[in-house]
Amino acid sequence: MGVAIGDSVLDVAAVADELRLPLRDLFSEAVLNRFLAAGPAAWREARERLTDWLTLPAHRAVVEPRLVPRGEVRLHLPFAVADYVDFYASRNHAENVGGIFRPGQPPLPRNWLHMPLGYHGRAGSVVISGTPVSRPSGQRWEPGEAGPSFGPSLRLDFEAEVGFVAGVGSRHGDPVPVAEFERHVFGACLVNDWSARDIQAFETVPLGPFLGKAFATSVSPWVVPLDALRAARTAPPPRDVEPPPYLREDADPWGLDLSLTVGINGGPVSRPPFATMYWTAAQLLAHLTCGGAPVRTGDLFASGTVSGPARDQLGCLLELTRNGAEPIVLADGSRRAFLADGDEVAITATAPGPGGEVISFGEVRGQVVPRPP
Amino acid sequence: MGVAIGDSVLDVAAVADELRLPLRDLFSEAVLNRFLAAGPAAWREARERLTDWLTLPAHRAVVEPRLVPRGEVRLHLPFAVADYVDFYASRNHAENVGGIFRPGQPPLPRNWLHMPLGYHGRAGSVVISGTPVSRPSGQRWEPGEAGPSFGPSLRLDFEAEVGFVAGVGSRHGDPVPVAEFERHVFGACLVNDWSARDIQAFETVPLGPFLGKAFATSVSPWVVPLDALRAARTAPPPRDVEPPPYLREDADPWGLDLSLTVGINGGPVSRPPFATMYWTAAQLLAHLTCGGAPVRTGDLFASGTVSGPARDQLGCLLELTRNGAEPIVLADGSRRAFLADGDEVAITATAPGPGGEVISFGEVRGQVVPRPP
Repeated sequence: MGVAIGDSVLDVAAVADELRLPLRDLFSEAVLNRFLAAGPAAWREARERLTDWLTLPAHRAVVEPRLVPRGEVRLHLPFAVADYVDFYASRNHAENVGGIFRPGQPPLPRNWLHMPLGYHGRAGSVVISGTPVSRPSGQRWEPGEAGPSFGPSLRLDFEAEVGFVAGVGSRHGDPVPVAEFERHVFGACLVNDWSARDIQAFETVPLGPFLGKAFATSVSPWVVPLDALRAARTAPPPRDVEPPPYLREDADPWGLDLSLTVGINGGPVSRPPFATMYWTAAQLLAHLTCGGAPVRTGDLFASGTVSGPARDQLGCLLELTRNGAEPIVLADGSRRAFLADGDEVAITATAPGPGGEVISFGEVRGQVVPRPP
Repeated sequence: MGVAIGDSVLDVAAVADELRLPLRDLFSEAVLNRFLAAGPAAWREARERLTDWLTLPAHRAVVEPRLVPRGEVRLHLPFAVADYVDFYASRNHAENVGGIFRPGQPPLPRNWLHMPLGYHGRAGSVVISGTPVSRPSGQRWEPGEAGPSFGPSLRLDFEAEVGFVAGVGSRHGDPVPVAEFERHVFGACLVNDWSARDIQAFETVPLGPFLGKAFATSVSPWVVPLDALRAARTAPPPRDVEPPPYLREDADPWGLDLSLTVGINGGPVSRPPFATMYWTAAQLLAHLTCGGAPVRTGDLFASGTVSGPARDQLGCLLELTRNGAEPIVLADGSRRAFLADGDEVAITATAPGPGGEVISFGEVRGQVVPRPP
């Protein structure tokens, strides 16, 4: 287990071992899951220890040799993913997608304002930032074609999202109220929910997104603890419709003022503001569990594409290019309707920290590679 | 690890230990996953050993004391579920559901004959046969009502399905061709994909089934090896549309002549014939992986509701009662549009074995209990 400190990574397992901390066993696993399962008291204790190590001169001799430059560290998938759920919590995104796919109809589905919509994704396809993403093949049936065809996706897209990582599981049958969000969720990471729009479009009625999403989902190596995001908490946009009691979050809502940036091949193409999300992470978890579905350690649930109201705040190419009709121009002058082989997508985010400090989420990065023949 | 032998369960771990078999470590785990991951050679060897034990007089003294009456055995979830996918592979079911939910439109969605449709379910909600199933709460918006309401489902249903359990994983990015089905899949089990029709109906557009299915999925404790199902293999119904090459299964198709029975409170209500399924299990796996999604040890993919063409061959109450409009009469004379609290649903299945023998899948059973207040 490592912790990002400026441009270094602190080898927490080694320090804890040298100081013979009771928590040290949790820090020396290949994934965070045992630490995640240990719950809020252990998470808090770990943060307090870290603060001591980094501030008390007495620990300097132990800590300094364990700070490794980031460039020398290979980061791995931080947790074993149990179930992966992807939501659809941005109203701007849902309205834009509705306008593209269902022109002439109301942009929001009739359930959208009453509950956060979501679907289960493929946990086995979650990969760590930096893993190349093979362009998937699949069936599509484009308008004007006589029938479906099979081949590599022609409309490959990214989706800039924020994911939430569950630590403490819940009992099967017991809902997790919005007020208990922090008892179960450890922190947040960045997610790129790669999407093949042509495959998705043909398969999606009536069972929803499946193979158009299941080929890969990339996550950042760093999971930012909720405890570090107190200064980022904010109220979500006002409700148009009063949600049912299990979704009400009157005091201290879990909207988060995160600033995302999406870059393609090194140049920024969008700056989605997470504070515009209609449903908060606490509401997502309350909805997911309202029928009794259990949460397990390592569950990942993502926000869905983060899109703000402005043209340069949209979280996927489907919206940025209006389904390919209006290509964007990259920093090198080339145009993109959708992703080309070799394109590298990087999503970063920052949050306001205590006392004006800026907290970095690091990045989730991935390069599109052609499918081997 | 136990093996069902008539009315007994053979304690395979104990026998293997006593005989000091090289495989014995695989048999003494709490779940089958290590055995599943060991692959076809190990699966075959285990079956050969078992046949020896049960037929060679030399082994009788070791084996007989390890045969435990079934009533004295508590059976557990046989494998740790990695990803769970539910398909929609019965044409009768898809047409019936289409007729109920989309009257006046073609009963099959336009993609249905071109590929097996599916969606990801919640792996953490998979429970072993016998586990009580709490009636889920959720949001519904019934026709004629002014707005949605939240409460316990009023249209709780079962779905009789067959599930397939992956043993050997695949590499992320590499499709599993239909011809390699047996290299990856160990066997089949029974699945009850409990469904809350009112919750499902309100949430399902546009992202597909989510909480209407995620509260519980029950599986049978026994996983029948594919090796034991050779005599059950059969051709699926003829294709209306030639599928693309990755779905073609010309020689030795994986249709299976399984006979299911669904009972409520001890009386049979339906006998769905699995041989009528349009898409075979090998096609389901080939489709699932055609875009490069990986398979992992413990992956479960289910057929979707098994429904034959006749009125007494339908695999769920939605079809049996035409969405509640024509209630069925149970053995005790009571009527059911959907499941009542206290109802116990049991699904059993048999397959033809070698030489006229009948292979039993055992059962998946579950009782509906009210949600605690």
